[in-house]
Amino acid sequence: MTLRIGVIGTGAIGQEHIARLHGKLVGSTVTAVNDINPEGARAAAEKLCPGASVHESGQALIDDPNVDAVVVASWGPSHEEFVLAAIAAGKPVFCEKPLATTAEACQRIVEAEIAGGRPLVQVGFMRRYDAGYRMLKEIVASGQIGEPLLLHCAHRNPSVPAHYVGDMGITDTFIHEIDVLRWLVNDDYVSAQVIQGKRSRHALNGLDDPYIVVLKTKSGVVIDTEIFVNCQFGYDIQCQIVGEDGTANLPEPATVPMRKNQIAGQAIMMDWKLRFIDSYDVEFQDWVNATLAGRVDGPTAWDGYFAAVTSDACVEAKRTGQIVPIETRAKPAFYN
Amino acid sequence: MTLRIGVIGTGAIGQEHIARLHGKLVGSTVTAVNDINPEGARAAAEKLCPGASVHESGQALIDDPNVDAVVVASWGPSHEEFVLAAIAAGKPVFCEKPLATTAEACQRIVEAEIAGGRPLVQVGFMRRYDAGYRMLKEIVASGQIGEPLLLHCAHRNPSVPAHYVGDMGITDTFIHEIDVLRWLVNDDYVSAQVIQGKRSRHALNGLDDPYIVVLKTKSGVVIDTEIFVNCQFGYDIQCQIVGEDGTANLPEPATVPMRKNQIAGQAIMMDWKLRFIDSYDVEFQDWVNATLAGRVDGPTAWDGYFAAVTSDACVEAKRTGQIVPIETRAKPAFYN
Amino acid sequence: MTLRIGVIGTGAIGQEHIARLHGKLVGSTVTAVNDINPEGARAAAEKLCPGASVHESGQALIDDPNVDAVVVASWGPSHEEFVLAAIAAGKPVFCEKPLATTAEACQRIVEAEIAGGRPLVQVGFMRRYDAGYRMLKEIVASGQIGEPLLLHCAHRNPSVPAHYVGDMGITDTFIHEIDVLRWLVNDDYVSAQVIQGKRSRHALNGLDDPYIVVLKTKSGVVIDTEIFVNCQFGYDIQCQIVGEDGTANLPEPATVPMRKNQIAGQAIMMDWKLRFIDSYDVEFQDWVNATLAGRVDGPTAWDGYFAAVTSDACVEAKRTGQIVPIETRAKPAFYN
Amino acid sequence: MTLRIGVIGTGAIGQEHIARLHGKLVGSTVTAVNDINPEGARAAAEKLCPGASVHESGQALIDDPNVDAVVVASWGPSHEEFVLAAIAAGKPVFCEKPLATTAEACQRIVEAEIAGGRPLVQVGFMRRYDAGYRMLKEIVASGQIGEPLLLHCAHRNPSVPAHYVGDMGITDTFIHEIDVLRWLVNDDYVSAQVIQGKRSRHALNGLDDPYIVVLKTKSGVVIDTEIFVNCQFGYDIQCQIVGEDGTANLPEPATVPMRKNQIAGQAIMMDWKLRFIDSYDVEFQDWVNATLAGRVDGPTAWDGYFAAVTSDACVEAKRTGQIVPIETRAKPAFYN
Repeated sequence: MTLRIGVIGTGAIGQEHIARLHGKLVGSTVTAVNDINPEGARAAAEKLCPGASVHESGQALIDDPNVDAVVVASWGPSHEEFVLAAIAAGKPVFCEKPLATTAEACQRIVEAEIAGGRPLVQVGFMRRYDAGYRMLKEIVASGQIGEPLLLHCAHRNPSVPAHYVGDMGITDTFIHEIDVLRWLVNDDYVSAQVIQGKRSRHALNGLDDPYIVVLKTKSGVVIDTEIFVNCQFGYDIQCQIVGEDGTANLPEPATVPMRKNQIAGQAIMMDWKLRFIDSYDVEFQDWVNATLAGRVDGPTAWDGYFAAVTSDACVEAKRTGQIVPIETRAKPAFYN
Repeated sequence: MTLRIGVIGTGAIGQEHIARLHGKLVGSTVTAVNDINPEGARAAAEKLCPGASVHESGQALIDDPNVDAVVVASWGPSHEEFVLAAIAAGKPVFCEKPLATTAEACQRIVEAEIAGGRPLVQVGFMRRYDAGYRMLKEIVASGQIGEPLLLHCAHRNPSVPAHYVGDMGITDTFIHEIDVLRWLVNDDYVSAQVIQGKRSRHALNGLDDPYIVVLKTKSGVVIDTEIFVNCQFGYDIQCQIVGEDGTANLPEPATVPMRKNQIAGQAIMMDWKLRFIDSYDVEFQDWVNATLAGRVDGPTAWDGYFAAVTSDACVEAKRTGQIVPIETRAKPAFYN
Repeated sequence: MTLRIGVIGTGAIGQEHIARLHGKLVGSTVTAVNDINPEGARAAAEKLCPGASVHESGQALIDDPNVDAVVVASWGPSHEEFVLAAIAAGKPVFCEKPLATTAEACQRIVEAEIAGGRPLVQVGFMRRYDAGYRMLKEIVASGQIGEPLLLHCAHRNPSVPAHYVGDMGITDTFIHEIDVLRWLVNDDYVSAQVIQGKRSRHALNGLDDPYIVVLKTKSGVVIDTEIFVNCQFGYDIQCQIVGEDGTANLPEPATVPMRKNQIAGQAIMMDWKLRFIDSYDVEFQDWVNATLAGRVDGPTAWDGYFAAVTSDACVEAKRTGQIVPIETRAKPAFYN
Repeated sequence: MTLRIGVIGTGAIGQEHIARLHGKLVGSTVTAVNDINPEGARAAAEKLCPGASVHESGQALIDDPNVDAVVVASWGPSHEEFVLAAIAAGKPVFCEKPLATTAEACQRIVEAEIAGGRPLVQVGFMRRYDAGYRMLKEIVASGQIGEPLLLHCAHRNPSVPAHYVGDMGITDTFIHEIDVLRWLVNDDYVSAQVIQGKRSRHALNGLDDPYIVVLKTKSGVVIDTEIFVNCQFGYDIQCQIVGEDGTANLPEPATVPMRKNQIAGQAIMMDWKLRFIDSYDVEFQDWVNATLAGRVDGPTAWDGYFAAVTSDACVEAKRTGQIVPIETRAKPAFYN
């Protein structure tokens, strides 16, 4: 059986997902596309999934009887509308992060999904599908290092463009850690603090860079994460778990150890797109398989909501310098 | 378009390939199977590719009009017969290593393929598809370390069963290096020497273990490889290229760095089956794609023949302690 | 010329220093000893520096005309008295850390030394003499990684005895980082915060363990240090400097990389005494040389005072959970 | 008690040894010097050991009643004469490598020492005093990796000057491995083979570079060592012991791990003089201590002789391409 998919949003990432779902993965085909730019949608369809319907609106795509499930890859502010429409139509929907641009909007999606009575929504947090994070989670789960007590993490980009400003270090960058670390230690956050570092001369336009975000979980685990988006030297994702009996680190990407020019070393990648590229395939294959089986196995609407609440708290913590509580509504039984 | 595949040999590795080609990869389906044990074949088909024909003989499978291409995963001595039959039928054939059990048999296959006039045969040397070896080959090709001058390699198994005897260190173990190192440096071998190490007390039944095989290439590159199949500590594959301007090593498999029990370290895998498991998928997807396009992109019958001649020379070098020349017929233009 | 040294305090560490100064190093000899336990002093002298005078009191030792310089290795509460007496006698004095048990006492020493008009006091912060920290400081000073922006550090002990309680994580453990990190980045601290981690089940008697101390410097550098004194796996000192253009880490102690028992790894030492053992020799040789030349090259009384003020602030930060300012008197020109 | 030392040869290395023995180490003083260039000797004495006698000849220095022990740091061809003279005078003598320039000369020294009836000669193989090799030897001795079976080594220099020609790769470079590896595995060599690698374009004047020397020991251990003196990237000494139960490597020199310019790596030193600089201090302190105690603890004349015989065999193996036996006279009981 083949899952017939409609893709809303045919920009760069939408096109990658179409290529993935229409040819590279098993069990899926793309039968419909839509974009706010109709010519872009048409061109993408011709190139990547010839024969797919090109719809005038996201709603029309969702209503298409040849669409079994929906992928939302349009820009953030449109996510809520399309996800709610898919839920209303009773169709499974994969929504790129963020689930919605505000915690309230995420909550509306959560409520709609619960009202619908069955799991339909998955959020595109692909790091959970990275082989390294999975190995690390297995180590933790095995009890080899005892209970996790502290996590030391870093999210470093070589540089960011001029339009990267304000709180994007939280909302665009740290948002990935927010989801994956919570999944890793299987615990919820209760507070956030942001500690400003000394500002790098490479930080443009008054951007705060670097800083440290400190999250605390319900059971008391403390997570410090360095956010440094102008570190110059490479795209570098670090995660060390300090447990009662030992420590465990996120594996470095496999690279060729070299000795050359007086240095024994290994290349660090510069392009973030390459770091988690394999995890997209795993994520979507997993989503296709689970969807065909009538399940949602990946990050849920609740996870999307939790990430939004946490992100809001971090932004406030950054603004105020205070320790800000992270308070969500009670977790509905629906998501257990 | 979907490639309809018949699989000869439904033992452990045959079943893995069926599962891969019938469900995991894109563009292929298994429509027929055969095994010397008909009940095994039937059981495998029911479990892994229900609906596939179960043929009485390899020849019948090859003649099946619903079979576009053949995979030979039966035991070594039967390879020659089935590969020649597939060539005679004009059907593409993927043959697990070895291509055949003697250099002469390999040569007959080479001649048959040339006589047929088009490339049909690929040999199952999966290491060429390993991400690590590919990175290493790219580094060499980029010129970053200059011309390769020396290679230091090791092939270590934690232990081998009692039926692993005689020259299997060459024919079963080193055979992988024979192919992949020749591909890595893009050069042919001209001589072989075997230097016996001090025998490990863990070596059973008079097995020589460890020893070093030294190969020399046409351009003068010297390759030393430690073969140690009772090293106890893990399955460990090493390859260092020493070039004019630097060195480059095969990447270690990505693992979780840990600190625990007074050791800072990383797990070494014990099971060789896990080390190159991803490369089988890449290998077969590549074969399916190339076959559908009418090409052979992977290791050819000529590579299988070259490996057989080299393996024979190593066995003789091991027996005599002498430096043994590696002499093949001239490479037919067909394989350029 | 030989420096004739009197050692006050002949316990474990006092005896190590006697052995070092009387035989292992060049240019020094131990001519007098004293201890609160006179028999211990006599036994130590007999064993380690036969012929040395055994004095009834620290003051008598200081007054001995055969003593050119004094080493104070008695217990902490006696340090102030002996250091002040040495200053009064105009004799150079090396005082094991802490310089004194309160910031006020340290300040009295600072004032006495200034009043005396010439540098006489060195404090026993031996990490500044560790080869690894020195390499790291050189890298920073070279500008290779740009301005330091953040430091991530850890001070881990496998376990602590039952008498290790209360704030000793600050006063006995973190005190080393307080001095060496300030020296490393050549900057003063302005505030401290302590973030409690999840408590390890291995922490005895209600000890808080682990936690993170966050120091901020005048120029804005943020330093987070994990203090974890029951980490089980080893004595482990980490320091990473994140600069504008790159990162640099404290070197790991050189150890033999091994592959054994399914692990590729290196031993972590369990005994903290071994980690900085070489630095004691360097520290005392440097002190002997500088003292003979009439200088103080190592950590000064001012550094001891600064460490005491910082330690007090950390203790308060731990108690209150607040960000506590670190306020010292203005640095006297005497110490520039 | 202080050992009064006469140093023959006040070139670069002689001056280093004078500085070491006259001020840096404990228990020694340099009381006399001599050099073929009398003005050089005088200048060195003035600068490094003012007051020392400057002798007209090595013999005069040896006969000086204020000289208890002799260090020979003159050029190689003069070693035999001075060592024999010291033996004749009954004075302990430390001779820089080589002990003498031919195996026959070494044998004459061995015979003279035995005839004299007590151990007097130590040869300057400083690698035995390197902390890394010592750790490695301890690991082997502890039995942790079982019996050594194979050793994989490398001796790499970034480049060599134009006057480095012919067999200097053996006589000047590999000579260090010859001694230290024999000491490491506590076994004698029985044969040598040299395998020429592909010649680097950086090798000047027809120098063979790189090549592999294969030594076999009495108990069957095989040792392969890459000699590559134009490797460009750094001075790089490698040694891996493959034992029955695991592997152990020579530690890398401690360096600062850095991330910078897209590389995660560590500096490799370019200057060979820095690599074993600490071991000279340990070596001479050990020699002073043992000499004062009437012993020879370090490499003996027999070790110097064994190294010379091995070096000769390697040179022949390089010339002939054959496996050359290493045959020495029987080891005299004197050296057990």
